[in-house]
Amino acid sequence: MRLISYRKDGAPGVGVMVDDESFVALSGAAPDLPSSLREIIALEDGLARARAATEGKSADLSFADVSLESVIPEPQAIWALALNFKLHIEETGLTTSAEHPQIFLRMPSSQVGHLQPMHCPRLDVAQTYDYEAELAVIIGRGGRYISEADALGRVAGYACYNEGSVREFQRHNRQFGLGKNFEKSGSFGPWMMTADEFGNPKDQTVIARLNGTEKQNSRLDDMLFSVEQVIQYLSLGYALRPGDVVVMGTPGALRPGPDHVPGPNDSDRVPGRTRMVPGDTLEVEITGLGTLVNPIVASD
Amino acid sequence: MRLISYRKDGAPGVGVMVDDESFVALSGAAPDLPSSLREIIALEDGLARARAATEGKSADLSFADVSLESVIPEPQAIWALALNFKLHIEETGLTTSAEHPQIFLRMPSSQVGHLQPMHCPRLDVAQTYDYEAELAVIIGRGGRYISEADALGRVAGYACYNEGSVREFQRHNRQFGLGKNFEKSGSFGPWMMTADEFGNPKDQTVIARLNGTEKQNSRLDDMLFSVEQVIQYLSLGYALRPGDVVVMGTPGALRPGPDHVPGPNDSDRVPGRTRMVPGDTLEVEITGLGTLVNPIVASD
Repeated sequence: MRLISYRKDGAPGVGVMVDDESFVALSGAAPDLPSSLREIIALEDGLARARAATEGKSADLSFADVSLESVIPEPQAIWALALNFKLHIEETGLTTSAEHPQIFLRMPSSQVGHLQPMHCPRLDVAQTYDYEAELAVIIGRGGRYISEADALGRVAGYACYNEGSVREFQRHNRQFGLGKNFEKSGSFGPWMMTADEFGNPKDQTVIARLNGTEKQNSRLDDMLFSVEQVIQYLSLGYALRPGDVVVMGTPGALRPGPDHVPGPNDSDRVPGRTRMVPGDTLEVEITGLGTLVNPIVASD
Repeated sequence: MRLISYRKDGAPGVGVMVDDESFVALSGAAPDLPSSLREIIALEDGLARARAATEGKSADLSFADVSLESVIPEPQAIWALALNFKLHIEETGLTTSAEHPQIFLRMPSSQVGHLQPMHCPRLDVAQTYDYEAELAVIIGRGGRYISEADALGRVAGYACYNEGSVREFQRHNRQFGLGKNFEKSGSFGPWMMTADEFGNPKDQTVIARLNGTEKQNSRLDDMLFSVEQVIQYLSLGYALRPGDVVVMGTPGALRPGPDHVPGPNDSDRVPGRTRMVPGDTLEVEITGLGTLVNPIVASD
């Protein structure tokens, strides 16, 4: 099952996808369920009720009728991983612990939904706005002191994440802070695919495309720390809540081919990486899951 | 004016202090106002209406009648500063940028209110749980691209903050991540004093006491980055919201006197710093503002 969060005429809603563009609105099919995906996930039988209420139904709305929101618009926590793919560690030249994942936080205000514009900072504020294609894990039944063996059973589903980053601000000091939290600098979508349908993330591939050109492509089994290990680690200090998000880190850049013509937005640090500027379109695909697409606009 | 957030019989409320222990409940004095301090701050005339409705009134409740919450129980953002006091930078031996503040995030789940227990991690999880006495700034009218000259005018008020930190986890990797976000590891209170009553933070002193013994004591003008500078910096990337919190960093430890008897919980890194353990009581005082007191209990 694939679920989306949206707004229609200002009111929040949750939908169950029928195909890649149209969906059944739960407000009609299951009016007793909350209008927040986070709250549906928090109910023990919430996802099962959504499935039962929509199975075999025809779509009543499509993406063109609504404004899509982040898969979970207001999670209580968005934990994100730095340097969790081997090639990305190499290309940055940075070191990271092999024993403990490197964790930071994003805020809900830093993310938008599928097809919504992502905001490139004003040029007088920052010039290096980068995409990062990632797997987002959405927690179902949370809790504290979760073992690795139990961890995947606590996952409600998965989505794509563009962990948009403002590099100058990320490098201003030791902690990433503001550089990972510019307004509407990231995206989260297109939908949550439930864990039973997606299967084990390790079998899939994450891909970034800038204006149609592939820029990142990596199997998800190249992670330094697995989904299970990160859930176990976080739960040592924090009681994971339903709808919490864990963003698993980004792979390295694909090296440019011999016929690559250098452009004005090419990174001078990482060969193959290109900055995002207004007018660009970014896609994050995870095989077996779907593709998150966002146009880039200038921040106001 | 000094305001608190509390729960009574499970329901949220906001109070205006009459003395250091008793207050007027706004649910009675101003029933039209929201029951959330964040929402009152977000109203253009919210604080003025709270003041008008309670001026000259006798207290109807005291701390013993309610369970105090963090001053703002659910802020949209808690921005925190690392290494912002000169003596603390020296004692850690760490370097920090002189040009840009060092910023990280805390989550609401990591903080409790005045007189509520703070949770010491289980000993098999971590052994170095530290207090950090800090000034908390609460944003009133937010916004983006705020100048230093305008910044103090965007502050609704101030409070004390104990930025409790689990050092092993903070040091597990480059980003602080979980080490600054253990469940109920910090505290925020006892109240918000409005900016007009508190005046300029630079004129005041922040003090930490562990079981009555003074452990930190520093004037707030020893900061590397001022409140105005940090608000200006954050607003370059983030539209500050009413009720957002900025925690300004902690000063160094007071060096132990010649008659100090080393104890089992003394830090082996920083002379004068002592870990918190269950049974301890921590106080954070800011002169002219008040004292935040929390007992330490073992985490479940």
